[in-house]
Amino acid sequence: MSNTEKIPYKIYLDEKEMPKQWYNVRADMKNKPAPLLNPGTHEPMGFDDLRPVFCDELIKQELDNDTAYFDIPDEILDFYKMYRPSPLVRAYCLEKKLGTPAKIYYKFEGNNTSGSHKLNSAIAQAYYAKKQGLKGVTTETGAGQWGTALSMACAYLGLDCKVYMVKCSYEQKPFRREVMRTYGASVTPSPSTETEVGKKILAEHPGTTGSLGCAISEAVEVATTHEGYRYVLGSVLNQVLLHQSVIGLESKIAMDKYGIKPDVIIGCAGGGSNLGGLISPFMGEKLRGEADYQFIAVEPASCPSFTRGKFAYDFCDTGMVCPLAKMYTLGSGFIPSANHAGGLRYHGMSSILSQLYHDGLMEARSVEQTKVFEAAEQFARVEGILPAPESSHAIRVAIDEALKCKETGEEKTILFGLTGTGYFDMYAYEAFNDGTMSDYIPTDADLEKGFAGLPKMD
Amino acid sequence: MSNTEKIPYKIYLDEKEMPKQWYNVRADMKNKPAPLLNPGTHEPMGFDDLRPVFCDELIKQELDNDTAYFDIPDEILDFYKMYRPSPLVRAYCLEKKLGTPAKIYYKFEGNNTSGSHKLNSAIAQAYYAKKQGLKGVTTETGAGQWGTALSMACAYLGLDCKVYMVKCSYEQKPFRREVMRTYGASVTPSPSTETEVGKKILAEHPGTTGSLGCAISEAVEVATTHEGYRYVLGSVLNQVLLHQSVIGLESKIAMDKYGIKPDVIIGCAGGGSNLGGLISPFMGEKLRGEADYQFIAVEPASCPSFTRGKFAYDFCDTGMVCPLAKMYTLGSGFIPSANHAGGLRYHGMSSILSQLYHDGLMEARSVEQTKVFEAAEQFARVEGILPAPESSHAIRVAIDEALKCKETGEEKTILFGLTGTGYFDMYAYEAFNDGTMSDYIPTDADLEKGFAGLPKMD
Repeated sequence: MSNTEKIPYKIYLDEKEMPKQWYNVRADMKNKPAPLLNPGTHEPMGFDDLRPVFCDELIKQELDNDTAYFDIPDEILDFYKMYRPSPLVRAYCLEKKLGTPAKIYYKFEGNNTSGSHKLNSAIAQAYYAKKQGLKGVTTETGAGQWGTALSMACAYLGLDCKVYMVKCSYEQKPFRREVMRTYGASVTPSPSTETEVGKKILAEHPGTTGSLGCAISEAVEVATTHEGYRYVLGSVLNQVLLHQSVIGLESKIAMDKYGIKPDVIIGCAGGGSNLGGLISPFMGEKLRGEADYQFIAVEPASCPSFTRGKFAYDFCDTGMVCPLAKMYTLGSGFIPSANHAGGLRYHGMSSILSQLYHDGLMEARSVEQTKVFEAAEQFARVEGILPAPESSHAIRVAIDEALKCKETGEEKTILFGLTGTGYFDMYAYEAFNDGTMSDYIPTDADLEKGFAGLPKMD
Repeated sequence: MSNTEKIPYKIYLDEKEMPKQWYNVRADMKNKPAPLLNPGTHEPMGFDDLRPVFCDELIKQELDNDTAYFDIPDEILDFYKMYRPSPLVRAYCLEKKLGTPAKIYYKFEGNNTSGSHKLNSAIAQAYYAKKQGLKGVTTETGAGQWGTALSMACAYLGLDCKVYMVKCSYEQKPFRREVMRTYGASVTPSPSTETEVGKKILAEHPGTTGSLGCAISEAVEVATTHEGYRYVLGSVLNQVLLHQSVIGLESKIAMDKYGIKPDVIIGCAGGGSNLGGLISPFMGEKLRGEADYQFIAVEPASCPSFTRGKFAYDFCDTGMVCPLAKMYTLGSGFIPSANHAGGLRYHGMSSILSQLYHDGLMEARSVEQTKVFEAAEQFARVEGILPAPESSHAIRVAIDEALKCKETGEEKTILFGLTGTGYFDMYAYEAFNDGTMSDYIPTDADLEKGFAGLPKMD
């Protein structure tokens, strides 16, 4: 492209330009992410250990720290073509509003009915389950993005989908529930009387409205006790970051095509699936010494895994049935205060991202909720997209960086991940519009309670 | 394109290929749509008669039956680039599921936060209001798509936006209301005590939950009694079809680029904004004798303006304050039974489309609600988009036509308009999922009551 030609508002790749392989950033990491450990023996878990819970092909992907590229099967490529490539958008209107010399780009993953990037991994996981001849999959969902994405993928492939939805979300987010039902999933409020663990919890805590940890425990129990079922998960795991690399790969191809090189790459971080996917190919270049980028993970001040957590082995779930993972964590018993970004309320973080952060290859910032919604509203009014609360964490820091450029006069190129839309988060916007939104930041004493629950390692 | 090359799943035009003019189908109509009449004198309304209510430039567009093309101002083109071009999608997955030899395409207008095509005209109307130096605009909204679109356009231009929202919708659709508030609009439940007409209605009918007709009357009163305000409307009017022609123009450019010629073009019809916009350039070719197409308008069996209405002058609103329009109508006093496609619950129809239908240039079909949701669900599960109830009327007939092709072996090319997404319509999906959705079709006696209210013309 000539330098005089204006970059379009939105860059859509042609189908032919879409990536045909996922990129595994672990292959280029000198310090590999630590292995999953058996929660009882503390021994690394191998292929056979994980087979009762996960699909075979996905376990291979989970354990492979060496293969740089995995072919995306044709069936998944066809599904991707239904809603991908996602647009890489030049935020001309936001730049103008801010009066910044910075050039701002965002990769928008919300143009599909699941409303987020979660579909990228949902279709992959459902595909491998189908290929293995399974009847169906089980999972948990909190806010509902992951459950919706999985139910869409399963409907497409004709696979049964059992979703355990945290009871309070089931009741407070009936719309998400109905989307999943429309896609043919069975949605059960958790804790339920369908599982032993659910019955036990209900007996101990009558009237409980559930938790993600409890829903995971139920989904895992159903997967391991029903023939032809396996459990699938929408974030944290290495395989999920592998599938989500499609976000970063598309971004990189589009930017290369127009000769754009980002200086700063920003993403929100809950379990790390979006951030990991977005930065993977860029991080690969940095790890190989081919280019340098500044990476910023953004998390809520109410759940600051990176910025105030510990790098340690911990349970992935509050029920403590899943393997131990080494990660930045607040402790599996840490209960984050109410925050409308449900997708970022997770005590831990992807092992891959944790290792990269630990090795100084990535920065992290925490931001307060009302500041996040101020950015969300500002963005919505000029860019025309109502962002999800999770995504708005990245918007906040992108705006902050652009305003710094305004002060310094630097013409930095900023890329951030806009993971999804906020159509099912209007209670959050209502609280913001009404001025009733709170910002609670945990005290050091709160954090110490969480850390106290970390497993004792040898 | 060579014949061996596969049509992509989604065709996105380059920015350079986007239309720079709107097309006015009236210029090619031998029988022009009948003029708006003064409801008191029954005289045609001219520029000066309409100035107290509408913006000057929009009145010119409304009254111009001769100019074929109107330049789209640069500012509107820039706004269009934020969310357009919309994709023209080849429904490969739906074709496969149906086992039809038909080729199905849809133009998807839901990839923006207003969730529908309404934004195409909202930005145009807001732009001309701003250009005229006005402070703001007023409007009514029922289901909320139009109000949302207008609030987005006004936020972008820094224009005040006063929305009168039918009270029952205001209470039942708090999420739509919050989206509008996030975009800075004031949203008032109608009837309100802010207007004389609102106070009068509240005095006569205490506890009423409002109606679209009442909300129109309030919005018009506020526009005509507040300096610097005008009233804007999201459908029915000629100017709206003009702006919406961008849908059909983009579709035609994309199809021409790949050598595709549609045989059948299908759209849902409430007031006619989407259908009119989609078919305009194709209808132009038909009117000029350059090509032939089959056009099908789809309406709910509960509100069958085309298929069971009369072609007559009628009031556009139930409050009878607006000009008379000649159209297919069920009578402004006709109250359609509850139907989840709120955007199609209108007693009348665009004068342009009414004339074209009257002249035999277009067909119409009515479909029942549960059949519509069956099609919506089938579509959602294979195409990955949860459609709005309104849009699903077009899906129903597209599927019916594709299944006919399966019987006859014809390889017809079908194009339909997918106007928007159903994320704010989950109560409707819930009723369908629960099997509690009803299909009420008005009796002839019901229709006679509506017709009895038609104004007596000389």
